[in-house]
Amino acid sequence: MTLKISIVVGNPKPKSRTLKVAETLAEKLFGTVARNADVIDLANYRDEILSWPSEKMDALNASVASSDFAIFASPTYKATYTGLLKVFLDRYPANGLAGVTAIPLLTGADQAHAMGPTVSLAPLLAELGAAVPGRGFYFVIGQMDRLDEVVQAAADQYATTLRRMARVAEALPPSGSSRS
Amino acid sequence: MTLKISIVVGNPKPKSRTLKVAETLAEKLFGTVARNADVIDLANYRDEILSWPSEKMDALNASVASSDFAIFASPTYKATYTGLLKVFLDRYPANGLAGVTAIPLLTGADQAHAMGPTVSLAPLLAELGAAVPGRGFYFVIGQMDRLDEVVQAAADQYATTLRRMARVAEALPPSGSSRS
Amino acid sequence: MTLKISIVVGNPKPKSRTLKVAETLAEKLFGTVARNADVIDLANYRDEILSWPSEKMDALNASVASSDFAIFASPTYKATYTGLLKVFLDRYPANGLAGVTAIPLLTGADQAHAMGPTVSLAPLLAELGAAVPGRGFYFVIGQMDRLDEVVQAAADQYATTLRRMARVAEALPPSGSSRS
Amino acid sequence: MTLKISIVVGNPKPKSRTLKVAETLAEKLFGTVARNADVIDLANYRDEILSWPSEKMDALNASVASSDFAIFASPTYKATYTGLLKVFLDRYPANGLAGVTAIPLLTGADQAHAMGPTVSLAPLLAELGAAVPGRGFYFVIGQMDRLDEVVQAAADQYATTLRRMARVAEALPPSGSSRS
Repeated sequence: MTLKISIVVGNPKPKSRTLKVAETLAEKLFGTVARNADVIDLANYRDEILSWPSEKMDALNASVASSDFAIFASPTYKATYTGLLKVFLDRYPANGLAGVTAIPLLTGADQAHAMGPTVSLAPLLAELGAAVPGRGFYFVIGQMDRLDEVVQAAADQYATTLRRMARVAEALPPSGSSRS
Repeated sequence: MTLKISIVVGNPKPKSRTLKVAETLAEKLFGTVARNADVIDLANYRDEILSWPSEKMDALNASVASSDFAIFASPTYKATYTGLLKVFLDRYPANGLAGVTAIPLLTGADQAHAMGPTVSLAPLLAELGAAVPGRGFYFVIGQMDRLDEVVQAAADQYATTLRRMARVAEALPPSGSSRS
Repeated sequence: MTLKISIVVGNPKPKSRTLKVAETLAEKLFGTVARNADVIDLANYRDEILSWPSEKMDALNASVASSDFAIFASPTYKATYTGLLKVFLDRYPANGLAGVTAIPLLTGADQAHAMGPTVSLAPLLAELGAAVPGRGFYFVIGQMDRLDEVVQAAADQYATTLRRMARVAEALPPSGSSRS
Repeated sequence: MTLKISIVVGNPKPKSRTLKVAETLAEKLFGTVARNADVIDLANYRDEILSWPSEKMDALNASVASSDFAIFASPTYKATYTGLLKVFLDRYPANGLAGVTAIPLLTGADQAHAMGPTVSLAPLLAELGAAVPGRGFYFVIGQMDRLDEVVQAAADQYATTLRRMARVAEALPPSGSSRS
């Protein structure tokens, strides 16, 4: 099968370091497969993201929802994800990201907001039906010079966790059999 | 392989309905395999759970940490998990539940605290390194007469999500290969 | 003194019921004084709220920051405040609402998200330096026919709490004296 | 009037640095008045805190509930307050700390959990009916050599906020008058 990967970046400025961190995480996780990731840089949709209806935004939302794996990345604003990212997620109906494996990623100036991805962005993604393989990922932007190393360590941990979860999935009875 | 399943119940009263809901969820998910689940009813350890060191508590902590899958269940006290459950989890070192697939489960009198499992217990389990396949599970205790039906629906959703995550795990490069 | 009161509404649709609930809360708390409240209906600024710089938005932000009391109201989207409200709050610098007494208010379809104002909007306002006199306020929109009654009960509780806090403030030593 | 002040410390070890930080905060806020604070070091009640009923624990709970001002202090365990502190708070009925002005205080090894007091302990206290004058207070334990300075800055901020809230309280109509 071909894995569908999406990266959504909620930085009001385009081509941010946050985007770079997210792309690196996808690459460290999936190698060459990550080259086909759809990258949605929400900074490019500031004129349209608060309009209803919008075919353009609907198409973006649908594309992410049909992904197997997605990274939702944002700089830390007021200790949590940006309003811009939330506006994008608000466009989904209930359970709009059902079944998507997702990693919440926040970048920040220092460690003081390191809990943000786990305590606010992860629950938001779960509310939409996505599933996070462990903690959220927080990246201190001052570590850009060690980007590969820091992201590789996180990727290794996510990969280990996903493989453990796959073992649990294998132990599930065939779909529907438990209902008898 | 044989799946190791643990159920930890943080109700100060033993043999609670919360325990029953958790056992039902394990059964709906894994069928007969769930019969071998280790059930730890923390009410039985109130005399020892606040003592350090404690070989007995250490053994319980270690058993849960070595599980493939665990349910952490608690009645809702003050809109979140009980202190009793937290005291048990506090005994772990950092990352003490690494790689365990876990479902946070809270029971409550009404819908007013339905967000609890997702916004407070799930982040706590993630902090310990566990991974939750989607939302936490909240069960309104007045629905005990529809226990099978309500829990089956939740189990179906967790099973679907776990299978989706297993597909993502399959797309990961062989362990270590991405480092080259 | 004259109390400066602001009401900020994060509903993408103008003149919402959420706005009506917020106005009613201000009125129940402060009586005729609330007639002078500045009401900022963010739906009217969707074209500009994602633009930087913006004199118009800066003026709105400054007006709210200079308030003694403010209500931040939003419908519940994905179990928390809307992205639109967050975009407005993101425009503040750190500590941008320092010293403002604020009430977080969310409206929703049912009780399932009743924790939202207290667990997500209140911490966001605190991060900005505002202070919330107790819990956040959650209003089930189906109760519009009992609006006066439900909001009066909440207002009474906030008033009682504020009076209790004023007693604590009176017991503080004169400003600076504790430094000697 | 005489202000009633309580300090509750949820460290399983008695006479902790967390207790010292909490006492210092009370002293910086209230000066000599803080000498009369009731200090409840929960480490001393580990044998009884999980027993029901308990006259001794009931008396402690009642004493704190009748306070004008209380500090709830805990070391950071698993990114949040200890189970020991939660066990104490679990003993309250709904709204058991109504009207108490409270400061949530967590100590920790580094900045990584600095959000804890604001995102988890503050909402817990609010759920019980207490009111927090702004953010929670997080103290990095490595700063003990600068204790006075760091705590004084926090105390000044709380004092300023409380005085601002008292002005809002003064603008409330006389109790009951808004009902007419």
